[in-house]
Amino acid sequence: MTIDLIAFDADDTLWHNETIFVTAQQKFKKLLAKYHTEEWIDRKLYETEARNLQHFGYGVKGFTLSMIETAIELSEGRITGTEIQNVVELGKEMLKAPVELLDGVEECIEELLRSYRLIVITKGDLFDQEAKFAKSGLGERFWRIEVVSAKNVKTYETILRKYEVDPKRFVMVGDSVRSDILPVIALGAHAVHIPYKTTWVHEQIDPTELTEKEYSRLEHIRLLPNFVAQLNGAERA
Amino acid sequence: MTIDLIAFDADDTLWHNETIFVTAQQKFKKLLAKYHTEEWIDRKLYETEARNLQHFGYGVKGFTLSMIETAIELSEGRITGTEIQNVVELGKEMLKAPVELLDGVEECIEELLRSYRLIVITKGDLFDQEAKFAKSGLGERFWRIEVVSAKNVKTYETILRKYEVDPKRFVMVGDSVRSDILPVIALGAHAVHIPYKTTWVHEQIDPTELTEKEYSRLEHIRLLPNFVAQLNGAERA
Repeated sequence: MTIDLIAFDADDTLWHNETIFVTAQQKFKKLLAKYHTEEWIDRKLYETEARNLQHFGYGVKGFTLSMIETAIELSEGRITGTEIQNVVELGKEMLKAPVELLDGVEECIEELLRSYRLIVITKGDLFDQEAKFAKSGLGERFWRIEVVSAKNVKTYETILRKYEVDPKRFVMVGDSVRSDILPVIALGAHAVHIPYKTTWVHEQIDPTELTEKEYSRLEHIRLLPNFVAQLNGAERA
Repeated sequence: MTIDLIAFDADDTLWHNETIFVTAQQKFKKLLAKYHTEEWIDRKLYETEARNLQHFGYGVKGFTLSMIETAIELSEGRITGTEIQNVVELGKEMLKAPVELLDGVEECIEELLRSYRLIVITKGDLFDQEAKFAKSGLGERFWRIEVVSAKNVKTYETILRKYEVDPKRFVMVGDSVRSDILPVIALGAHAVHIPYKTTWVHEQIDPTELTEKEYSRLEHIRLLPNFVAQLNGAERA
């Protein structure tokens, strides 16, 4: 049985994303430096984000609202309107940031395109993700782009059913073990983990969750075409 | 040729939405009453929203960020953090608001379901829209739910191509002439306008744009099943 469909995560798999959040967060900490230590600001911001996730979902707009709330809380309401406008501007800068492809992505996509249908399964804000595809120049290479609000077993199951793809013929490629790997292998499909240099705390997982889970890890997306070819060979044998 | 696929807009077609924005905006004006007149606040907020649309897209989170910016601008930065927290809370209230179906929606959907495939094509924030479908209890009635970032000719063309539906066999139902009607009739498909009691300024259109455009207008969604039956009859004759 050969591979029929390869799906890519987008943020931190095709292009840099976490870097944009980290940079914004550093500027945010500078803005609040007179109120608290960096460590405390990081901790409070993460708490606000986690609490707001159920209302806001993922994405820059929700993150910006969480920065604003954190700034008000940490300054005990003393922060001025002008300072908050600076936080709003941080959010707009993030939305306007250019899309920088990760090294090797274009070549990898070109090579795989010769033999496979490629799709994207990305979590986040629909408007932001579409804007990033437009800026990336990659949009046309993919057969379908699925923007989803969460990546769990049901999400992948629905997509595989929609495209009538056997899990054994499906490969998911991404940087997040929690979102791109575990729910995919739970369905009996293939998953390839390509770690990004940093991982958002919320996506980090307890190593004990990984016991006896089977998936592959590649150090670089350049290695992917060969890996898929081998997978095909092994499945055929 | 009979009708094959009926698509519904969601906000202000299936459930009340504009009302939630209008209510929040009234509370927002009360919060800023000491700085400016209601009329001026309305005008400035609309200007901020229109300017931010390219960065934020549609939805509550972008609207909340626009309220925050407007509050800072109109108070010349004098607004306090605590007052801004009240604006953030207005946004959260909107996201938590219960979904209230419009009168007659459930019966209409039930009746049409017996003979047609029904889908939803809705503009807005993916996370918000999915949450509203979950709250509405209507999610399972639709064959597909398409959340799109804009509703233009290309959007509808892509959807019709994806589902391999002839425009002549497609009906779109919605409250916005700009988003639900004009791009659909441009493709030679059917469109039914069911006006909501209020329309967001951004969705209002110049009446001269409507000259010689052909579409139907129903005063109530209860009239839809009969209308579709007649359309089928006329197409058959």
